[in-house]
Amino acid sequence: MAAQTSAPATASPASPVDLGPAAALSCRECGHRVPLGPVFACEECFGPLEVAYDFSGWSADELRKRIESGPANIWRYAPLLPVPADVADKPNINPGWTQLVRADNLARELGVTGGLYVKDDSGNPTHSFKDRVVAQALEAARAFGFTTLSCSSTGNLAGAVGAAAARAGFRSCVFIPHDLEQGKVVMAAVYGGELIGIEGNYDDVNRFCSELIGDPAGEGWGFVNVNLRPYYAEGSKTLAYEICEQLGWRLPDQLVVPIASGSQLTKIDKGLKELIALGLVEDKPYRIFGAQAEGCSPVSAAFKAGHDVVRPQKPDTIAKSLAIGNPADGPYVLDIARRTGGAVEDVTDPQIVDAIKLLARTEGIFAETAGGVTVGVTRKLIENGLLDPTLTTVVLNTGDGLKTLDAVAGTGLTATIRPTLDSFREAGLA
Amino acid sequence: MAAQTSAPATASPASPVDLGPAAALSCRECGHRVPLGPVFACEECFGPLEVAYDFSGWSADELRKRIESGPANIWRYAPLLPVPADVADKPNINPGWTQLVRADNLARELGVTGGLYVKDDSGNPTHSFKDRVVAQALEAARAFGFTTLSCSSTGNLAGAVGAAAARAGFRSCVFIPHDLEQGKVVMAAVYGGELIGIEGNYDDVNRFCSELIGDPAGEGWGFVNVNLRPYYAEGSKTLAYEICEQLGWRLPDQLVVPIASGSQLTKIDKGLKELIALGLVEDKPYRIFGAQAEGCSPVSAAFKAGHDVVRPQKPDTIAKSLAIGNPADGPYVLDIARRTGGAVEDVTDPQIVDAIKLLARTEGIFAETAGGVTVGVTRKLIENGLLDPTLTTVVLNTGDGLKTLDAVAGTGLTATIRPTLDSFREAGLA
Repeated sequence: MAAQTSAPATASPASPVDLGPAAALSCRECGHRVPLGPVFACEECFGPLEVAYDFSGWSADELRKRIESGPANIWRYAPLLPVPADVADKPNINPGWTQLVRADNLARELGVTGGLYVKDDSGNPTHSFKDRVVAQALEAARAFGFTTLSCSSTGNLAGAVGAAAARAGFRSCVFIPHDLEQGKVVMAAVYGGELIGIEGNYDDVNRFCSELIGDPAGEGWGFVNVNLRPYYAEGSKTLAYEICEQLGWRLPDQLVVPIASGSQLTKIDKGLKELIALGLVEDKPYRIFGAQAEGCSPVSAAFKAGHDVVRPQKPDTIAKSLAIGNPADGPYVLDIARRTGGAVEDVTDPQIVDAIKLLARTEGIFAETAGGVTVGVTRKLIENGLLDPTLTTVVLNTGDGLKTLDAVAGTGLTATIRPTLDSFREAGLA
Repeated sequence: MAAQTSAPATASPASPVDLGPAAALSCRECGHRVPLGPVFACEECFGPLEVAYDFSGWSADELRKRIESGPANIWRYAPLLPVPADVADKPNINPGWTQLVRADNLARELGVTGGLYVKDDSGNPTHSFKDRVVAQALEAARAFGFTTLSCSSTGNLAGAVGAAAARAGFRSCVFIPHDLEQGKVVMAAVYGGELIGIEGNYDDVNRFCSELIGDPAGEGWGFVNVNLRPYYAEGSKTLAYEICEQLGWRLPDQLVVPIASGSQLTKIDKGLKELIALGLVEDKPYRIFGAQAEGCSPVSAAFKAGHDVVRPQKPDTIAKSLAIGNPADGPYVLDIARRTGGAVEDVTDPQIVDAIKLLARTEGIFAETAGGVTVGVTRKLIENGLLDPTLTTVVLNTGDGLKTLDAVAGTGLTATIRPTLDSFREAGLA
């Protein structure tokens, strides 16, 4: 907080923006370039802006050495991210370098023989992959002179923003539907920022946030997933980087990635392509599979129907963190799944619960519902022949089961006994 | 599971026990040595057994290099732990190398000028420091040919044992009081092992487990905190190792450690002394402070009264993970606190809650109640002049706030508004 008092209240940094290798923002649709700034839509065609880089000056060997000698968090990849070179010295939550678990027990259950891994992002500071993207957005907010970090959320994002803002001495203001479950409110409120309940549903919250950004009242505010979205989204690239480095600088053959907005999947693809282009991994094919819950499966439905566009759905699933009925990056996901020889599949809520239990029982990883979706979809893709079990496969778990305890609430005691050996034997436990 | 079918059902390994540098078990009271095995009490004097090592053959430089090139988990310290040299290749939950957070915001609030750090063990696989000790016990269980991993627990330990057993393909059997809160039951049950409710309180559960160990029904069972306790306890040394390495191979001047049984504090002291003896850190004084909740403060009470023995208490505090009324290592803790110039202090439940919120608000770390105890005690020790704010201080957070949400259940929305800019302004948020 004291560290931030000298920062301007609005987005007008005193010095030129230093975001490391980030050179500009570029429109994903028309290629129009604009200088780095807190903007997210192309002024020419309204397409989404994304970060364009200048990676020149690195040989593959130098880069690999630099990365390997870096910290055990996402900042080891600072040369490939829109962050200043000294990012690791600034106050941030420093997510990443989470475990890539060799999942031999799960592989046996699923019949995978080519090597199965779970990338377990529940090890992040607030226990979801959102820490990666928020840490990234925070650095952009700092560069642009923002002093408030904000978002609309119904869960993981609220905690990630609250924690990162607290660490960095930013004000935080998180908007949620006013009638959210008490547990989720506590998880978001504990970091002490403003937590505003909006009388309405999540769509109302989002619409209000868009209004706020265009209003003087929102000046100096960095909405991580709106006006900082181009930077925020880049955080997902680090999943691709870590997976390859943890495999010994090898590309996996297949990845199974959850789809909410679809941004994570597209950025993982971007990250893999960058590693190939930079010579850090061999140039060989990989397949990306998208995973949805049946109760919110607009991308899966479009994939199966052979459509290029995604028809919005009204979500109804226990996988709340994936429940985006109109995913902004849906068309890009379809393109990547088709281009790489992957697929998009969905599973029912009971299948999600089964998969959460399967992962916990075989690998000791307690995933949130989104992890149940990816594991369940992996099983289904093997059954229907779309995923090759003889190839190296990485499945993402992006969140923590402690946040979605209700999904497995039926789990309980296997026996109740009196505290005696006789009772123990009678129960057949000896 | 398949990997374990060839192991014997009882504790009689085919080959000599390979636990790396561990040479024997040695009685903490009388020094009597016995070979490595699943025993925990001295046959001569009933004192507690602990692992004795042979660290010869390492120069400080070689050892430092070996550690620094190791994995980002506790197995980087394999040369200093009772584990085989190839431990990192075996299926285990691989905890550790958690963040040492430079807590400048908290330091300002507390008036610490010498550098304040929080060692945040909520980043472990099941989000508590128990993963460290269980991972260690699992390796001992494997070495002794056990096929079932067991414990009595009311919380963190149950999850750690369930997860580790699942990963390693062991059977697990966890004993809990039958009337535990449903949320805690779910967290323990999800890993799919046997979860046995005992009709009685935690003392009844413990007494039953002791009976089971002496009975044929318990043959082949490794109780992590009973017959594997000497190995289990060594896991806490890794906290000392990591803190020093993360400080750049420097000893902190002061550490604030929570006290449940007291084992963790004594092993942190052991770890620091080992680093000094091995020449990995400079030989200089450090002070260790113990932290308890007022509602379970037998060690704090003994410290203040100048006693050498600890008088048991009946626990009544929200800090359930520290609620051991008769701490086995209490006298050793008293000795260490006095020898190093530290102290033992306690805080009330409201102070614990305040400290949880303070840590979350200043550093974005959501601690369980035990973290509230250490932060609260740190504040109190500064106020009463026992902890020197001009010295480098490390405070331990050993668990995760998501597991003790009830402690901060009062936290909530700062405002509720309609989804309009007018409503936003009326609430004074602009």
